[in-house]
Amino acid sequence: MKIFVQGMGLMGASLALRLKELGHEVAGSVRSAQSRQILAERGLTDITLAAEFHARQLEGYDLVMLGLNISDCLTAIDEIMKIDTLASKLLIADMCSTKQQICSYVSEKYAHARFVGTHPMAGKELQGPAAADVNLFKDCTVFITSPFETARARDTAVLTELWQSVGARPCAIAPQEHDRNMAYVSHGLHLAACIIAKMSSVAAGEKNTPSPAAGSYRDMTRVALSSGAMWQDITRSNQAFVAEWLKELSAASADLAAQVEHGKADIVSLFSDAATARARVMRT
Amino acid sequence: MKIFVQGMGLMGASLALRLKELGHEVAGSVRSAQSRQILAERGLTDITLAAEFHARQLEGYDLVMLGLNISDCLTAIDEIMKIDTLASKLLIADMCSTKQQICSYVSEKYAHARFVGTHPMAGKELQGPAAADVNLFKDCTVFITSPFETARARDTAVLTELWQSVGARPCAIAPQEHDRNMAYVSHGLHLAACIIAKMSSVAAGEKNTPSPAAGSYRDMTRVALSSGAMWQDITRSNQAFVAEWLKELSAASADLAAQVEHGKADIVSLFSDAATARARVMRT
Repeated sequence: MKIFVQGMGLMGASLALRLKELGHEVAGSVRSAQSRQILAERGLTDITLAAEFHARQLEGYDLVMLGLNISDCLTAIDEIMKIDTLASKLLIADMCSTKQQICSYVSEKYAHARFVGTHPMAGKELQGPAAADVNLFKDCTVFITSPFETARARDTAVLTELWQSVGARPCAIAPQEHDRNMAYVSHGLHLAACIIAKMSSVAAGEKNTPSPAAGSYRDMTRVALSSGAMWQDITRSNQAFVAEWLKELSAASADLAAQVEHGKADIVSLFSDAATARARVMRT
Repeated sequence: MKIFVQGMGLMGASLALRLKELGHEVAGSVRSAQSRQILAERGLTDITLAAEFHARQLEGYDLVMLGLNISDCLTAIDEIMKIDTLASKLLIADMCSTKQQICSYVSEKYAHARFVGTHPMAGKELQGPAAADVNLFKDCTVFITSPFETARARDTAVLTELWQSVGARPCAIAPQEHDRNMAYVSHGLHLAACIIAKMSSVAAGEKNTPSPAAGSYRDMTRVALSSGAMWQDITRSNQAFVAEWLKELSAASADLAAQVEHGKADIVSLFSDAATARARVMRT
C-alpha cells in the first residue's frame, strides 16, 4: 500500500518504520526539522514538514494514518474533505486514545468519508520519533471503531489487516464502549497516578537520605512522566467517563477509609477481588 | 555474628542466604517442612520448624531477626523476654512494614530490651522462601527505628552495619514519621491499586477478545497480586495514617472529577506537579 503517516511522534514513527520494513511505500509529515533528521537516519526519507504540508499531497495514497492529537485530527479531516478527489476516496484512520469524539464528528459531518478509528494500546512515557520502536505494536491490542452505524466492512477490514500485519491484535468495538472502558483501564489510571505522586511529596524526606520509594511506588507512578499536554487532550475528549471514574475512585476510597478507621476493612477480600478482576482484564 | 532468622518467608530467607554468603553463622525457623526443604537445597541447613521452636534455642545467638508478621513478632518478643538469660542480652530486630506499633509495644513493656526496629523497602508480589533472592536488598532503603527516646547507639549501629553489609541503605527515622511516610509512598498505594483493579472489572470485555490492558494498567495494578493477609496486618498496624491517605485520595479525586466535568482541569500542571514530586521521592 501507499501510506502517508501525518504526524510522526512515538506512535506514528513506530508504525511508519514497521510498515516500511513490510514493504509498503511510506511517507509522512513531522513538525520539526529535527524530527525529520531523526527519521532520515532511520531510513524514512520521504518526510514533509507540517508547515509545508497540504492535504493535496495525499493524492495517490491509499491510506492516510493520522498520528496527531485529536483536535489536529479533526482539522486534518476537514482539510482532506475539502478536496473532492480525496473526499470519498482516500481511506483515513487515526490513532487517538478516545474514539467517540472523532467518530461522532465524522458521522455527523462527513457521512460519505472513508474513515476508520483505531486505537493501539501502546505507548511509553517517552515521546517523539527518537523513541520510535518497530516492535512497539507487537502483541498490543488495537481497537477498531467505525463512525457509521453500519460499519463499512471493506474499510474496517483494511485497517484490521494492517494492524495485524505489524503484530497487533485488532478488536472491533463501539466508540462509546471503547471510551468508557478506557476510562477504567487507562485514562483514569493515569490521572490517579498523578494524584498519588503529588500526594507523596510530603513523604519525600531529605535529599541526602535514601529514597523511601520501593518498586510499588516506582510502578504506580511511572505514567506520571507522560506528556501532560497529551493527557489534557485525552481527558477533555473523554470528559464524562473520566469524571465518572474519578467519582467512583473517590467514593471507593472514602468507603475504605471509613472501614480502615473502624478496624473493619476486609483487606484479604479486597486483594482477592482485585487479583480476580486483574486476571480477567489481562486475560491471565 | 551468630544470627537466628525467626520466620523465613521472602524477606527472612533472602536475608539469611546473603548473611550466610558473608560468613555469618545463620540458623532460622520456618512454618512448613516444604520451606525447610527449599532452604536446605539452597544451603541453609540449620532450620527448625516453628512448631518445634522455643525461644530458649536463642541462647548463644548475637541477634534474632524476626521475619514474622507484626502480631507474631509481638508474641516472639514476649517469649524472648520471659527468659532471663536473654531479656537484656539478646539483640532483637524485626522487618515489619510499620514501626510505631512494635516500637511502642517494646518501649512500654520492655524498657530494658535490646530491640531495634528495621524496615527494608524490598519485596515482590511473590511470597515465600522459594522466591528468595540473595540480592533482594541491594540498594534498597532500610529504615532503622528505635523504640527508646534515647536510641541505644550500639544496638542501632549493629543493625545499621548489618543492613549496609548486605548492600542496603540504612536510614534512621522516628517510628511515627516512618509510618506516616509509608502510608504516602507504599501502604496507601497498595490499597489504591486494589481499588483500581476491582473497578476495572466492568471494562474486562469478552474472554475471547484481546485484552484492553496496556503497560499503564499492568504496572499500576501489579501490587494487587501481593498477599492480602500480609496487607491486612499492615493496614491494621498503620490504621490512622492509611485512613488519612485514603481520605486525601478521595478528596483529590472528587476535586479533579468536578474540574474534569466542567472542562476546567489543568491536566498539564497535574502531570508536571506529579513528575516533580516523583523526582523528589525517587531522588532522580
